[in-house]
Parts: sequence; C-alpha cells; structure tokens
Amino acid sequence: MFNFEFYNPTRVIFGKGQIDKLHSQISKDAKVLILYGGGSVKKFGTLDMVKKSLKDRKIVEFGGIEPNPRYETLMKAVDIVKKEDIDFLLALGGGSVIDGTKFINLAANYTGNNKAELLTNPKAVASITKGLPIGTVLTLPATGSEMNMGAVVSYKSGKFPVFSPLSFPRFSILDPTITYTLPLTQVANGIVDTFIHTVEQYVTYPAEGRFQDRTAEGILQTLIEIGKKTIDNPKDYDARANLVWCATMGLNGLIGAGVPQDWTTHTMGHELTALFGIDHGKTLAILQPAIWSVRKDKKRDKLIQYAERVWGITEENDDLKIDLAIEKTREFFESLGIKTRLSDYGLTSDKIDLVVSNLENHGHTNISETGDLTLSISREILEKAM
Amino acid sequence: MFNFEFYNPTRVIFGKGQIDKLHSQISKDAKVLILYGGGSVKKFGTLDMVKKSLKDRKIVEFGGIEPNPRYETLMKAVDIVKKEDIDFLLALGGGSVIDGTKFINLAANYTGNNKAELLTNPKAVASITKGLPIGTVLTLPATGSEMNMGAVVSYKSGKFPVFSPLSFPRFSILDPTITYTLPLTQVANGIVDTFIHTVEQYVTYPAEGRFQDRTAEGILQTLIEIGKKTIDNPKDYDARANLVWCATMGLNGLIGAGVPQDWTTHTMGHELTALFGIDHGKTLAILQPAIWSVRKDKKRDKLIQYAERVWGITEENDDLKIDLAIEKTREFFESLGIKTRLSDYGLTSDKIDLVVSNLENHGHTNISETGDLTLSISREILEKAM
Repeated sequence: MFNFEFYNPTRVIFGKGQIDKLHSQISKDAKVLILYGGGSVKKFGTLDMVKKSLKDRKIVEFGGIEPNPRYETLMKAVDIVKKEDIDFLLALGGGSVIDGTKFINLAANYTGNNKAELLTNPKAVASITKGLPIGTVLTLPATGSEMNMGAVVSYKSGKFPVFSPLSFPRFSILDPTITYTLPLTQVANGIVDTFIHTVEQYVTYPAEGRFQDRTAEGILQTLIEIGKKTIDNPKDYDARANLVWCATMGLNGLIGAGVPQDWTTHTMGHELTALFGIDHGKTLAILQPAIWSVRKDKKRDKLIQYAERVWGITEENDDLKIDLAIEKTREFFESLGIKTRLSDYGLTSDKIDLVVSNLENHGHTNISETGDLTLSISREILEKAM
Repeated sequence: MFNFEFYNPTRVIFGKGQIDKLHSQISKDAKVLILYGGGSVKKFGTLDMVKKSLKDRKIVEFGGIEPNPRYETLMKAVDIVKKEDIDFLLALGGGSVIDGTKFINLAANYTGNNKAELLTNPKAVASITKGLPIGTVLTLPATGSEMNMGAVVSYKSGKFPVFSPLSFPRFSILDPTITYTLPLTQVANGIVDTFIHTVEQYVTYPAEGRFQDRTAEGILQTLIEIGKKTIDNPKDYDARANLVWCATMGLNGLIGAGVPQDWTTHTMGHELTALFGIDHGKTLAILQPAIWSVRKDKKRDKLIQYAERVWGITEENDDLKIDLAIEKTREFFESLGIKTRLSDYGLTSDKIDLVVSNLENHGHTNISETGDLTLSISREILEKAM
C-alpha cells in the first residue's frame, strides 16, 4: 500500500425527508445564495422545499448553471456573491451545479485579477485561504462532487479540474426520493459515471490495497445489481438509495487512498464532450472497453481480478477471462440504454485527429497510472472505440 | 436503507515514516501533553521519534494509562491539563490511551462538579461545547478509536462508552511499522476486535445497505487473508498495513451508516473483562460463536449471506451453511492463538450468575439489534460459551 492522507469533513445527511434538516445546518442569520441549473428544480417542487426549510432567511437565487458548467456563466454568480454580500452558498442540483458552486466560491475569494488562471494554475488556487461555507442538496447521483473537493469547469474548448480543500461541502443532503423525477438517460449516465470512477481507482496494477479493492468491487457489484432495476423502477427506494450512496462513495477519496489511479477514461472523455457535446457518462461508456482492450497487458492482473471477483468469471484461460469481463462491462452499459461506440453517436474516424490534437494541446501526452499512455496509444484507443 | 448522518472529520496520515508529519499538524506555539501507556513507547523509541518531530514545542508527559483505562487514572491527567495550561493532547498508543485522552479532554472541559456523571449521562457530555484538539499516533490496530468519536472508560466494576463529536481526533498518524514490536497476543486481539466490530454492524437483519454489506464483507475477507500472515511475519509491511487500515475502517461510522447494529458481543464482553480481567479481544472471540448459535433464527438471512460471501460456503442446506460459518469463525480465532471458550480461561459455570447480575445492574436487559435479547438469553449464551 502507498502512503496516503485521507481527509473528508463533509457531513452527509441521507434519506427520505432530510431536506427538512437544512434549517439546522445553516446559520440563522446567513444570507443564502441558492444555485441551480435548469427549471426542473422548480417544476418538481424541490426549490420550494428548500426555501421552506430555510424559513425566513434572506435568499438570493442564481439559476441557469448548465451541464459542464461554463466559466463565463459562473463569473456572473461571482458578481452576485459580492454585490449581495452572500454568507452561504447552497447548491441545488447534480455535479455541474455543485462543481460550479465550488468554483464560484474560489473565484469570489481569489485576490488575483485573472480568475481564469484558477483553471490551470494550482498555485493560484492554493493561494486562496478562505471561502464561504457550501452546502448541497443533491438531485442527480453521478459525480460524487457532493462529498469531495474537486470541480470540473468548461472554458473555451477544454474541461479543467480544480481542487481545493475549501471546496468540501460543509454538508450534503442526499434524499433519494428527489431523484425519482430525473430523466432515465441521466440516471443511466450517473450509473456509468460512478462505475468508471470506481474502476479508474481499481483496475490499475496490484498495490496491496485490499480494503480499497474489496470496497471498489462492492460498489461495482452493487451497481450491477441495482443499475437496471433503478432505471426500470425509478421509485424503488432501496435501489435508488443504493445508487446514490455508491455514487458518493465512488469518488470521496476512500477507494483511491493508498492505491494507483488511472484517470485516462475521464481525461479522454472530457475531450469528447468538449468537442462533440456527447454526455459525460456516455463518453466513458464508449472509451472504457476500448481502453481495457488496448491496455490489456498493463492492467492484466487487475483485469483478471475484476473478471473473477466482480463478474464471477471462472474460465481457466486468463485472456478469455479478460475478454469476457470487457464484454460483460459493455453489455452492462448497453443494458442501461447507453451506446458504447463512437459510431453510435455519428462520429467517423476522420474526427480522431481532432481529439488527439486536443489531448496534445491540453498536455495529456503521457497519461494513465504508469504515465506511458502516449498520443499514439490514445489514437489506437479511439480507433478501437469506433 | 435507514436514514442516517455520516460525519467524520479526522485526517488520517497513513504509512511509513509519517510521524515526521507531526510537526506540520500542530500549532507551532502549542504546549503539548503527550499521553501514553506503559514503557513500550520508550523502549522501542516511538516516544523519542514523536518528541523529535515536535521540535522545540513545550512538552509535558503523562504515562501510565492502563489497558481499559480507569477513571481515577484519567482524572490525574485532567489536573495536569489545567495546571500546565495545555493546548494540545497527543495520544501515543492504542485504543486505551486514545480513549483515555478523549475522556480527559471532555472531563477537563466539563463545568459540572462530578466528572463521573459523564460516564452515564449523555446530556452532561452534550453540555460540553468546546475541547482541546486531539491528535493520535497509533501503536496498536484494534479499536478504531483513532478515527471515531467514542471512548470506553472503566469505573468501579463497569466499562462505560462515552460519545462526543469533540472526541474526533484532529488527525491520526497510522504508521504500520511502529506496530511491528507489538506482542503477538495483542495483534491477535486487535484482529478479533476488528472482526467483531465489523460483524456487529453486519450480521443483523437485511436492510438493503448493499455498499455497507459489501464493505463489511471486504474487511472480513481481508482479515481472514492477512490475519495469520501478520502474526507469523510481523514485519510483512503489506499484511500489517492492511490490518491497520481495516481496523480503522471497521469502526469509523462507514459500514454502520444506514443499517442495523447489534453491539451484544461488546456489551457482554465488557462485563467479562471488568469481572475477570480477560483481554477485551478474547472476550469477543469467546462470545461471538455462542451468540450466533443462540440467535441463529433472528440473524438467519445475514448469517447465510455471511457464510456464502465471506467464507464461500456453497452447501445447499442453509442450516449447515450457518453452522459451518460459525465453526470457521471459531477456527479463524483459534488460528490466531486465541481460545474461544470460557472454560479455556479457567471459568466455571457458577460464575455465570455474576455476569448476568452485572448485565442487569448496568441496564443491559434488552439488548441486540432487535432489543429482545433478555437476561435469560444472555445466560443461555454464556452457557453455550463454556
């Protein structure tokens, strides 16, 4: 096991009716900025529930944070935070709204003139010494942002991850019932996102992180058990609750502590979203089988472990085990209604140059857990994913 | 899944050589009280390493916190905290030292005259609004105290659990190498303690906590894999590191969130330790097989799941599955050199009255996850454990 630090101070308040606890979690005299995305939180009454729980606190609203939140949108909220003298940021939404809120907080408290440098310069981020408290009410299980210190922000043709301990939410309310009204395609995307977060911290090379491995396998097995069930029966509380909790646990630092991590799928996926607007979760479902096929030798031991423990594959031949596991993974994504090939999204192989060129422009020339996944291997992966 | 709150702000700093990080974790002008148990931290150089990392901070020492720390001992440290105007409490030891330190902190900050009421009156504990920061350097993997808010204190003929959010350590340093010099019997006790913490949050009744179940199973499987290995080869880093991390994860709130819990084994075990001085870990190894035999019907579904998933038992007959799982559990404890019957410790059945009477005196008349484990069932368990 590698040396590591694990720290996660977010309070999770989980279950039916927990929005009522908002009142007890925020200072009574705080002026609260509620941030959200499109109109669904209005349409389905979640915003009203939140406002009711906040009682007579002063409230300001900022809606319109889009999926893959854009820097320019978030800067508008930064102005409001200052002008309105906001004390508390309450994100009501999924990963995009929560990520956006985290970045708004950092930008509002950054003393440098050019806020955009926070996207690419970790030292600029580290120079920020205090921020406003953030709370979240999660409406979409997927990114794990409700219990971590990361955010991904879109700017020009790229997506940029930004990390700061100031971004840990003070609390996150996870009520599975408020996710019942989600479009099923978003639920499916969230299942895939969680699945891929988990394998990116697990299917690498053996490092004697037995708790981490077993816990990752537990998340994957749970997703396989309840994935289709929660899509077929959106109001099955237990299925949805297990999805919500797995999504949070998949990216809160727990399963990645002390073991290698390989963020290739997300790194390459971000380029596909930025260039072609393919949903984040779908880009991952397209890339993962292709990445494993191409990196079979590098990940051999863990792919065998994954085949045996997650899928219960008992064939004697190890290569067959791996191939079957990759195929079963693809079938799982497809069973959720998610297509797993670039060509399914209308992309032709002449677009590969563009993706490779963007990977190069963004510095992703030696990625993966071993740092040796070059642009030519990325090209091979994209060809495999056609 | 039940509604729950999960909150754990302790920073874990894990791995070889991490004691060097102490310096960065404690305010430079803090006056530090280092608390420890017997002489082993001196003998093996751990205390010197700690002092070196603390550099030129003012240091006061308080040694002699015994296993199952006694209220009277801890009160002596409370006097020192006040007299010496201490700013930071640094526990250097296992669960007893850490638990003791937590209680010292509460008692030193309690305004009531009778500190002993903190042992039995949660309202008195809740009235404490601030405490000193606590850090720990763990020398014995077992109790999980390094990453939770609980403490167990001995007073007169009883052991009393005390919970407060003020008791979460600010940080805990977990360096597996400093546990190499532990007596093997203590390592074995720690393995059993961790195993039992885990089953007490897992072998109850089904509640659709799939992540929690799988994670608990992962801890148990890991302990089975590395338990004997880390006793036979105390300097096998990976085996010991996995034990240390599992011990912490077994009782930090994670696997118990949103699922039923049954603390019968600990509740009854505490009486055996208080009355007869049997090591805590050993009391658990004695009681667990007997509890499962007697409560087979109440725990049927989860015992079958435990048999199948943790031990890989595939027999068709469910009763046989359960019996085999109980037997395998007993064999696992015995393989660590831990005897599993009361008679192995020289106890005869005429002592059972005394235990039952103490359970009654301490109010443990309706325990377990279903609240229906009465004194007569406790008696049956003790008879079975002879």
